[in-house]
Amino acid sequence: MNVTNTLFLIISSILVLFMTTGLAFFYGGLVSQKNVVNTMLSVFIMTGIAIILWISVGYSLSFEGNIYGIIGNLHNFFMNNIRTGSLNDQKIPTMVFSGFEMTFAIITPALFVGSIVGRIKFNFLLSFLILWSVLIYYPMVHLVWSSQGLLAGLGILDFAGGTVVHINAGITGLILSAVLGKRIKPSNTHYSLPWVLIGTVILWIGWYGFNSGSALGISNIAVQAAMTTTVSTGSAMVTWMILDMIISGKPNLVGVCTGTLCGLVGITPACGFVTLAGSFWIGIFSTLSSYIFIHYFKDKIGIDDTLDVFGCHGISGITGSILVGLFATKYVNPIISHNGLFYGGGWYQVGIQVLTTVITIIFVSAMTFIIIKVLCLFIPMRVEPKKEKIGLDKSEQGEEADYTVNISNQLANSHSYVSMHKPD
Amino acid sequence: MNVTNTLFLIISSILVLFMTTGLAFFYGGLVSQKNVVNTMLSVFIMTGIAIILWISVGYSLSFEGNIYGIIGNLHNFFMNNIRTGSLNDQKIPTMVFSGFEMTFAIITPALFVGSIVGRIKFNFLLSFLILWSVLIYYPMVHLVWSSQGLLAGLGILDFAGGTVVHINAGITGLILSAVLGKRIKPSNTHYSLPWVLIGTVILWIGWYGFNSGSALGISNIAVQAAMTTTVSTGSAMVTWMILDMIISGKPNLVGVCTGTLCGLVGITPACGFVTLAGSFWIGIFSTLSSYIFIHYFKDKIGIDDTLDVFGCHGISGITGSILVGLFATKYVNPIISHNGLFYGGGWYQVGIQVLTTVITIIFVSAMTFIIIKVLCLFIPMRVEPKKEKIGLDKSEQGEEADYTVNISNQLANSHSYVSMHKPD
Amino acid sequence: MNVTNTLFLIISSILVLFMTTGLAFFYGGLVSQKNVVNTMLSVFIMTGIAIILWISVGYSLSFEGNIYGIIGNLHNFFMNNIRTGSLNDQKIPTMVFSGFEMTFAIITPALFVGSIVGRIKFNFLLSFLILWSVLIYYPMVHLVWSSQGLLAGLGILDFAGGTVVHINAGITGLILSAVLGKRIKPSNTHYSLPWVLIGTVILWIGWYGFNSGSALGISNIAVQAAMTTTVSTGSAMVTWMILDMIISGKPNLVGVCTGTLCGLVGITPACGFVTLAGSFWIGIFSTLSSYIFIHYFKDKIGIDDTLDVFGCHGISGITGSILVGLFATKYVNPIISHNGLFYGGGWYQVGIQVLTTVITIIFVSAMTFIIIKVLCLFIPMRVEPKKEKIGLDKSEQGEEADYTVNISNQLANSHSYVSMHKPD
Repeated sequence: MNVTNTLFLIISSILVLFMTTGLAFFYGGLVSQKNVVNTMLSVFIMTGIAIILWISVGYSLSFEGNIYGIIGNLHNFFMNNIRTGSLNDQKIPTMVFSGFEMTFAIITPALFVGSIVGRIKFNFLLSFLILWSVLIYYPMVHLVWSSQGLLAGLGILDFAGGTVVHINAGITGLILSAVLGKRIKPSNTHYSLPWVLIGTVILWIGWYGFNSGSALGISNIAVQAAMTTTVSTGSAMVTWMILDMIISGKPNLVGVCTGTLCGLVGITPACGFVTLAGSFWIGIFSTLSSYIFIHYFKDKIGIDDTLDVFGCHGISGITGSILVGLFATKYVNPIISHNGLFYGGGWYQVGIQVLTTVITIIFVSAMTFIIIKVLCLFIPMRVEPKKEKIGLDKSEQGEEADYTVNISNQLANSHSYVSMHKPD
Repeated sequence: MNVTNTLFLIISSILVLFMTTGLAFFYGGLVSQKNVVNTMLSVFIMTGIAIILWISVGYSLSFEGNIYGIIGNLHNFFMNNIRTGSLNDQKIPTMVFSGFEMTFAIITPALFVGSIVGRIKFNFLLSFLILWSVLIYYPMVHLVWSSQGLLAGLGILDFAGGTVVHINAGITGLILSAVLGKRIKPSNTHYSLPWVLIGTVILWIGWYGFNSGSALGISNIAVQAAMTTTVSTGSAMVTWMILDMIISGKPNLVGVCTGTLCGLVGITPACGFVTLAGSFWIGIFSTLSSYIFIHYFKDKIGIDDTLDVFGCHGISGITGSILVGLFATKYVNPIISHNGLFYGGGWYQVGIQVLTTVITIIFVSAMTFIIIKVLCLFIPMRVEPKKEKIGLDKSEQGEEADYTVNISNQLANSHSYVSMHKPD
Repeated sequence: MNVTNTLFLIISSILVLFMTTGLAFFYGGLVSQKNVVNTMLSVFIMTGIAIILWISVGYSLSFEGNIYGIIGNLHNFFMNNIRTGSLNDQKIPTMVFSGFEMTFAIITPALFVGSIVGRIKFNFLLSFLILWSVLIYYPMVHLVWSSQGLLAGLGILDFAGGTVVHINAGITGLILSAVLGKRIKPSNTHYSLPWVLIGTVILWIGWYGFNSGSALGISNIAVQAAMTTTVSTGSAMVTWMILDMIISGKPNLVGVCTGTLCGLVGITPACGFVTLAGSFWIGIFSTLSSYIFIHYFKDKIGIDDTLDVFGCHGISGITGSILVGLFATKYVNPIISHNGLFYGGGWYQVGIQVLTTVITIIFVSAMTFIIIKVLCLFIPMRVEPKKEKIGLDKSEQGEEADYTVNISNQLANSHSYVSMHKPD
């Protein structure tokens, strides 16, 4: 066993696990005060379900054996047949590798919760999670990260999950929110911005486990991934702020946090393949593309992707995946067989990245649509309008985000009383 | 020095230190808005006092020398006589081992704060902490984790602190709240659920330092401990949700967070001794036992263990400690001398676990009772009823949790005014 | 490459990066509800700008080459000319060392935000950050931590940044707030104490990366730094609580959190040079000096250093820097050439510490003053009084901290209505 690499992967796994609850706070802070608990619980409970799924069938379907380059088999059900102490090629225990990959299987479905907050049935979401994991997520992992996967065979470069995680989650969120329909009475009041910020920073911190940990060991590549992640995030958050300064005149926290995420998403597929200068530009272009989409195209599409899962993870994920084809260089990572366009490799890798991105989009959107339609035969997808108006915290969970929610509801009534009886 | 193991232990110590404030948020989020600061401060200040106590006498009384198998001596007062660079058997600096164990001495007393929130005198709590550390905690560590300790001699299997930490804290909390008496006017309003969730996740994240770090080095045992911790937590949180779905119809965040803790507590004594399948079942049984106790037996006992320290840490700790006797297997950890019941070892280890658990319960409850009675001769235990009604934030600390508390108090008055003068 | 040291530095960098947002919560929790977002954003956006600055010119100006012992050159612009895989003396990749030092360049400017909350122009602050980084921070790093720096040549002992980080930030904050002037209508209501506490604990946790990481590798010095940091923090937080118990009768959370920071600041320059007993006393004296300054001298000076950046970081930083001259001992760290006063080294090192502290204070205060005056020629420093009264969240960012802020504003109006119309 390589003890240092093993320690690195254990720490990385803890960091990525931490991200999932970071997401609960990011989303929970952005929704209105009547949907906070439901949003946070939807994200948090996925952790438990995804752990059990991964241990029982997920690892095996993703990495054990190979069926047509699309999926593995069930030979390692519940991690059976994995001897304590068995090591993978990097001299890391298979169990540690499995634990690290498990954390990706936890956070990816948590991402698309942001598209559908405030109106989806809790039971539907949990059922969808199970089918989505088996029919979409494990196949995506196998396609891209198993050495025998079809997309891996095409030569895709996806260091830490541009396709598997971000495009996947972004497209899933888009289809889910399209079928689910818009909120009845959308609110633009955020529950609490400090929670948005702490969610953002937990995601950022955890992302080092996500990106650097994907090197599967301490090496120059792991170091490079950590540094490019930092630089891309820095340029992305500043870019969003400058855009807001120019366009609305008011740089704001929600914008800067969104820009931060765009930079993190955009660099994810590229982090182990590009230079610091490359990551600087990837950060800028990720934010630019997401900013333009969210501000100018989202309304035209008319889909209520409530917290911009597609706008952020989908768009920045696609941008990052394609930019790998421009910025990847053997100078950084000798594993690359064709340099990117800007490093003399021509359009070859760009073509591969576009192709694999398109395949991912088609596969995920088709499968998501099918799963939804099948599930809808058995479970209603959307809560009743009355429950939606009350808010899912009260109607689905029987809880309130904090003690002020009840007071503010009472106040709304008493206020209308006061204003009705204002002396005129 | 084994640098990798040293790094692992330093990181684990940081993680466990983080847990204590996680607990401050978990408890602070659950209490009513007038006792938040007092609850958080009670947990947080223990950190400082426990650090000074551990460095001065705690390490020495726990691990240096041996008096009747019950306690050590004061030879290493203030870590004197420990040469810089002295190593323990795992080639870790003694200072690092001491720092790691210190973090356990910090979090354990913080746990029982949850039993007695909203009515204990701050001075009493601090005085109790000092006596409890010297007369209960350091002896428990010596009994179980010193090679010359009596319970270690009996053959107890307690990987990371089922008896020393969780049963100990659970019983202490139960006795404290029994003697202290019920709250005058119990409130069921929680201050803020997002704080409960962030407390839970900080505890979970930190628990990897707690459980995996207890292997004292990177090894297959450390890896196994990390994985069993994850699986047990996953099955426990899902079990609680399912129970709530069946019984109350509304899965909720407080329940899922409590289930998460039960899974973490239950696996603590077992994490380095059991298989993944074992940990799956330990998670389920821990939640089941705590769920049944809290929902069906707690009221009958009639003790106001306010935030269920006994219900969660005590009950799940006892369940986990005894289940070690069923699930422990040499296949996972060769240090085990007798396999558990389910692995062909018969009832031997079950008997040892029951015996040592009972000894712990008797020792801790007797000593806690004696300390309280002695302390009460000098300091009043409970705040005056008037102060309790105002809330301890205002009366003991002169602070309020946040700016809304004052507004909500004013509102309560103005509301009663408004309703009194409603046109009839 | 020394993989363990590299891993240690990567983790340390992540921890220090986490600290910056910890600071956002610490400050954001302390201000009034109308300045929370502006405060948090001011801290958080510095991260992005400081990353870009460091990568482009900061590393090079701090560590590459040497101009008169005061500053480096621009040879490594955007980390050019640093070969992948190039190692420093500790066998750590140069890139990792650069990333670690980057996190210090991020948090230091974030510290002084606390002096000037609620009234500074956002644009002014960002412009000041850029000039301050180039003209004050990088020179300070070069002076103290480059082997060719002038203060290094004088024999200063500053393990992790007493002068470079804390005195620097404290003095900068003092000058900024002196020139900026007092708040129009200071509020003493804190937005939220749980945010203050989580900020404090994130800072504490991150400080292990800051202090222990400054050993640049796993060693007995790194271990000692971690332990002295813990002990100093413990004694400092308890000291503040006891002072409050004696003087005001009410130990409180804001006080204990401030004491925690004082202990962390005070031990920073000393952590790798002193014994545990030394750190115990440094914690006490740091808190004592800051407590006395804040409670008895601050009002006399008449500068509105709003969140006590000078009172905490400046005063405890100066105290710690000078105490190094008393407590440093070759027994702990053989790199020390002259023992401190209490270890038989006489007044020599005390003199060095006082001299270098005074030079730091003069350099930073003069440069800060000049930068402000030059900047004021181009950008107004202070927001208009009307905007200050509304609060910077609304006027500069167009956001509110959380959904209750708007309600509480409405309530303030409705309340005045209700009280105006009280039946008399």
